[in-house]
Amino acid sequence: MNPHTYSRFISFEGLDFSGKTTQIHRLIIQLARHGISAEMLREPGGTPISEAIRKMLLDNRNSEMTRRSETLLFSSARAQLVEQVLVPRLEGGETIIADRYVDSTTAYQGYGRQMDGHFIRQLNAFATGGLMPFRTFFLDVSVDESLRRRRSAGRGTDRMEGTDIAFMHRVRDGFHEIAAANPGRFLIVNAERPEEKIAAEIWGEVSRIWQIG
Amino acid sequence: MNPHTYSRFISFEGLDFSGKTTQIHRLIIQLARHGISAEMLREPGGTPISEAIRKMLLDNRNSEMTRRSETLLFSSARAQLVEQVLVPRLEGGETIIADRYVDSTTAYQGYGRQMDGHFIRQLNAFATGGLMPFRTFFLDVSVDESLRRRRSAGRGTDRMEGTDIAFMHRVRDGFHEIAAANPGRFLIVNAERPEEKIAAEIWGEVSRIWQIG
Repeated sequence: MNPHTYSRFISFEGLDFSGKTTQIHRLIIQLARHGISAEMLREPGGTPISEAIRKMLLDNRNSEMTRRSETLLFSSARAQLVEQVLVPRLEGGETIIADRYVDSTTAYQGYGRQMDGHFIRQLNAFATGGLMPFRTFFLDVSVDESLRRRRSAGRGTDRMEGTDIAFMHRVRDGFHEIAAANPGRFLIVNAERPEEKIAAEIWGEVSRIWQIG
Repeated sequence: MNPHTYSRFISFEGLDFSGKTTQIHRLIIQLARHGISAEMLREPGGTPISEAIRKMLLDNRNSEMTRRSETLLFSSARAQLVEQVLVPRLEGGETIIADRYVDSTTAYQGYGRQMDGHFIRQLNAFATGGLMPFRTFFLDVSVDESLRRRRSAGRGTDRMEGTDIAFMHRVRDGFHEIAAANPGRFLIVNAERPEEKIAAEIWGEVSRIWQIG
């Protein structure tokens, strides 16, 4: 089977506080109601090697880590996860929902940090061996809304500087560009609506592509 | 200063047991006689982050590491080393001699393991930010000679299978192809001659390009 075409692998993308994790949990519960067991996948991590890399990425003592080194570490953890866990599970017929995947690397590193986008795409393809989600839900909120939610969550934005906000705009614009370039895979979801409305739209699409109910 | 053009950065490449380390030590001693202090660099390692990556790469418990993950880890360690150590030292006027650098990745991963050579080259360029050695000495020995020396060193080749020997041939052929593609940078050194002869040829080139003596 061509690894590009596992229909039971989907991903969620979006800015922080766009509601990805909430919607994935709702979807997993809804799937369970229909007898489908789905697993959420969150990078980096998921294998002993990927967890060791995760520790390095999160270790405060590694504050001098360069952006290039960081990007390659993320990709290394992903390569390990894809080959050791993701492909075997999808081959075994499991259902996997990724909370961020390669599009986040393209949006954050490529567009946000303005690293070479052409290379980032090739790096993604190398790390995943070409394994892409069958469908990607881009939960779209404005930068202002993301910041508002961050404040409500008690993760203050007082010290957030103009460069960080410009960064968030580049990331969001990046997601839109990626979506435009992949119209068959991406579904842009207006994520400023009530949770239930968003969940209903996502379920509409998931139940359609997986022919549920 | 353009990072591509530090003349005081050179590298040595070749199969195992081609005599790289011996020749680098000889060169360092010869340079010291002329009042030039040179430092040998050996990857992966050289920064706290690169050392942590090195530990992961050498850890026997990580035997399930995939080739892609491994390649990206090597590159991540290199990216960190280049930016945090190599460029600042070269900017400071230091002399650096690398015992293997990007050409080893191209030869071993690209040609030997037959991974996508085009991508490997781009990965190298990304990891190094384009920082290449001013001159690369390729110490060339035949596969048979490398195996003979391995046996003499007590690192038996009895269990070495045909695939490993085919691998070594691909790596050596790879080095020759890289050399042919970079005639201005590469010097192919016949490394089956006596140590002194090899050292003399290398010194001839180094003293010429650095105008020593």
